[in-house]
Amino acid sequence: MTIKVPDWVRGAVFYQIFPDRFRQGPVQHLPPGLTLKPWGTPASEQGFQGGDLYGIVEKLSYIEELGVTALYLNPVFASASNHRYHTYDYFTVDPLLGGEHALRLLLDEAHKRDIRVVLDGVFNHASRGFWAFHHILEEGRNSPYIDWFHIDDWPLNPYPKRNKEATNYQSWWDLPALPKFNTDNPGVRDYLFSVAEHWIRFGIDGWRLDVPEEIDDDAFWQEFRSRVKAINPEAYICGEIWKKADHWLQGDQFDAVMNYPLGGAVLGFFGAQSLKPDDQPEHLELKPRTSHSLKKRVDEIYGWYDPEINQVQLNLLDSHDMARAKWILSDDVPALRQSLAFLLALPGAPCIYYGTEIGMTGGPDPDCREAFPWHKPEDWDLTIASAIRKQALARQYFPALGQGDHYIHILGKETLAVERWLDDDRAVVFFNRSKKAVTVTPPETCLGLNRLNDMAERANDTLS
Amino acid sequence: MTIKVPDWVRGAVFYQIFPDRFRQGPVQHLPPGLTLKPWGTPASEQGFQGGDLYGIVEKLSYIEELGVTALYLNPVFASASNHRYHTYDYFTVDPLLGGEHALRLLLDEAHKRDIRVVLDGVFNHASRGFWAFHHILEEGRNSPYIDWFHIDDWPLNPYPKRNKEATNYQSWWDLPALPKFNTDNPGVRDYLFSVAEHWIRFGIDGWRLDVPEEIDDDAFWQEFRSRVKAINPEAYICGEIWKKADHWLQGDQFDAVMNYPLGGAVLGFFGAQSLKPDDQPEHLELKPRTSHSLKKRVDEIYGWYDPEINQVQLNLLDSHDMARAKWILSDDVPALRQSLAFLLALPGAPCIYYGTEIGMTGGPDPDCREAFPWHKPEDWDLTIASAIRKQALARQYFPALGQGDHYIHILGKETLAVERWLDDDRAVVFFNRSKKAVTVTPPETCLGLNRLNDMAERANDTLS
Repeated sequence: MTIKVPDWVRGAVFYQIFPDRFRQGPVQHLPPGLTLKPWGTPASEQGFQGGDLYGIVEKLSYIEELGVTALYLNPVFASASNHRYHTYDYFTVDPLLGGEHALRLLLDEAHKRDIRVVLDGVFNHASRGFWAFHHILEEGRNSPYIDWFHIDDWPLNPYPKRNKEATNYQSWWDLPALPKFNTDNPGVRDYLFSVAEHWIRFGIDGWRLDVPEEIDDDAFWQEFRSRVKAINPEAYICGEIWKKADHWLQGDQFDAVMNYPLGGAVLGFFGAQSLKPDDQPEHLELKPRTSHSLKKRVDEIYGWYDPEINQVQLNLLDSHDMARAKWILSDDVPALRQSLAFLLALPGAPCIYYGTEIGMTGGPDPDCREAFPWHKPEDWDLTIASAIRKQALARQYFPALGQGDHYIHILGKETLAVERWLDDDRAVVFFNRSKKAVTVTPPETCLGLNRLNDMAERANDTLS
Repeated sequence: MTIKVPDWVRGAVFYQIFPDRFRQGPVQHLPPGLTLKPWGTPASEQGFQGGDLYGIVEKLSYIEELGVTALYLNPVFASASNHRYHTYDYFTVDPLLGGEHALRLLLDEAHKRDIRVVLDGVFNHASRGFWAFHHILEEGRNSPYIDWFHIDDWPLNPYPKRNKEATNYQSWWDLPALPKFNTDNPGVRDYLFSVAEHWIRFGIDGWRLDVPEEIDDDAFWQEFRSRVKAINPEAYICGEIWKKADHWLQGDQFDAVMNYPLGGAVLGFFGAQSLKPDDQPEHLELKPRTSHSLKKRVDEIYGWYDPEINQVQLNLLDSHDMARAKWILSDDVPALRQSLAFLLALPGAPCIYYGTEIGMTGGPDPDCREAFPWHKPEDWDLTIASAIRKQALARQYFPALGQGDHYIHILGKETLAVERWLDDDRAVVFFNRSKKAVTVTPPETCLGLNRLNDMAERANDTLS
């Protein structure tokens, strides 16, 4: 089938925000008598620090200046966990985040700046407090919603003394907090599709889909796509799938997936000397690579999908679900800058995890979810922000960098170049991961180029 | 202070509906894949039988023809129990009832017929599935909503193996399903008041307040009143208080209470021979009475309150919270008809529990909550409906009967008359509880009356 992807995602630069930890805005919307954790409490502590959507609105200029053109927000619907993947109400923006009013404002203000907003859709599982599951907890077999979940045995034991105790209902990763929807029930399907439609109508620009592989049902995702696209044909549908995902990327299900394999390859090359050897992210192949190995892996990944899909893949180094890239790279900031620049030089929509640009670090979840240190600007490393901004703006100004074809040239074991072209526009970005200056010969196709876009470490490189 | 009551309640006749059991309407609004109990399943079985607000709309003509001018509905907000006193979402009309669309339609259609609609407000406690309580269940001490309820100890045990196990949080009647709000928290107060305001703005005509005595805080109810009346000065506020309630009826809190003591006295007189001796409703003084004893008790009850309050008291024989009057009267239908007629002859707003008019019966909760037998009209005893209709219409046509002063005349041990007057309008209703004809002399004040409104058993009575 013909593959149709949202045009606005070609060349887009995403910024991912974990809403509880980005910024508490100036609007006093919380009721009195609430108890929040202080801003900056270690992320390993449970609880809410009070980031909200008004805070994102307040910082839209800051975000825009980075060269960002789209936001991906972790879940914003009502949930009793700070990551909000335990939804209790899919039709309510969490009151701690400012509620629907704040989302309305954020969409309006972002759209004024041509910044799109993609939300996180958690459709595989709900929370124990989701109304239909609560209904079953209260009414047992007498609940009309008995078929909305997968009940194995009675009585239910929703709050076991030990969290790892076997649940007697199906749940995500056997966590009792996350009962899995029975998406074979037509009422459940309608309900979930109505959620997807409602927020698209409200004005969001797409859905990032949480663990969509767990809903092992092509027809579900096909209908999801057709109902969402019927409302907004330019809505972006991006699945969280950590591996090769060609099954979902044939044009009838998702537009893209989160391209973790690409990020892993990139970190493996630029971080070959600095990777933390004993801290492998769970789903990620992360190993030191030469330029040959990087090219081979990147070419392989781009070969998995149609070129149209590759133009809108969500390319990322890290996210809320893994250690921050800076942490993985043992604080090797030059390697981080080049890794980001490399993603920004390739086709697809790179996604910057909030705070990466100022050097925030943190190990695996939940440590990667710290509060943004607005109050400590003296700690910020602005060289990263500067590298991102430069390359992000280049993508906007040079169509080849945003939407062109690409080729990776190996220049040496530690050096390579990414060439991009679109019609008459052509750009090359050179990379040198070594800490010393090298002299490289531009690839033949690049001879005569009048623009050499160098996002590598200028101070250390010599480009001939 | 001056006592100001809603004018529309003077002379009103209420009809109380338990929404799951009144009528399933013709609108197909339920999603596929739901499992309801068959209509007519014994009320002792848990579960939902599918009554909805569309069903009430469908039967508005039926209700109007009874002479009814107002509905009191048991709770309609989202809840995982068929009585819906376990609210999980105060801003959502239960989807099983048809959701907000159905309530909108019901209000519009009822108002076209000058029928008012009063909803049940459950503000003392929520359910375990109410979002802020769920928040605490999930997050424990880390929840910002920690102060919204009264937590005594950790970890919480919301679903104990035995329901009577001591809860480690305050709850209504120590039921773990019903955690009690901390109404001292200003955020909780605002939240509950915003619920009350929201539905008054939506167009309901008042609130029947569930167990308001449990919120032992005059300032709470004073603010509740002032916020509700600021939106609709004619909104009716009626508290569920089973005893003398003068504390709440000084003009600054409620307009009325559910007048169970009056109903108890009436049943005691008309049912003197037929009361079930061993089945005393929990909060109700129910004993055989002579006409002297009845008059004494009724005069006492009317003496508790300002005459303005008495004009809008919700006078009732029974409700969802107790055995049906017919059951209490051992199926003595003549006694039931006269009891109803007596209530309808007195000042205040009588409230007919759904199905009373066709002879539905049933013991204490939950047996008193059976499905209305629309499908078995051959079982209906329409003499009751006829008695209600006659007296209810009389209240509409004769202002004295609807809004006048009153006096109870004792005519004999088993006979009495209720006299009502307003300006030049005057009416007397005679009652004879004995099963044989008697000859009575009208009270002197009644001589020369040209209207004798006889709701008693004409066949058995002789009126001079």
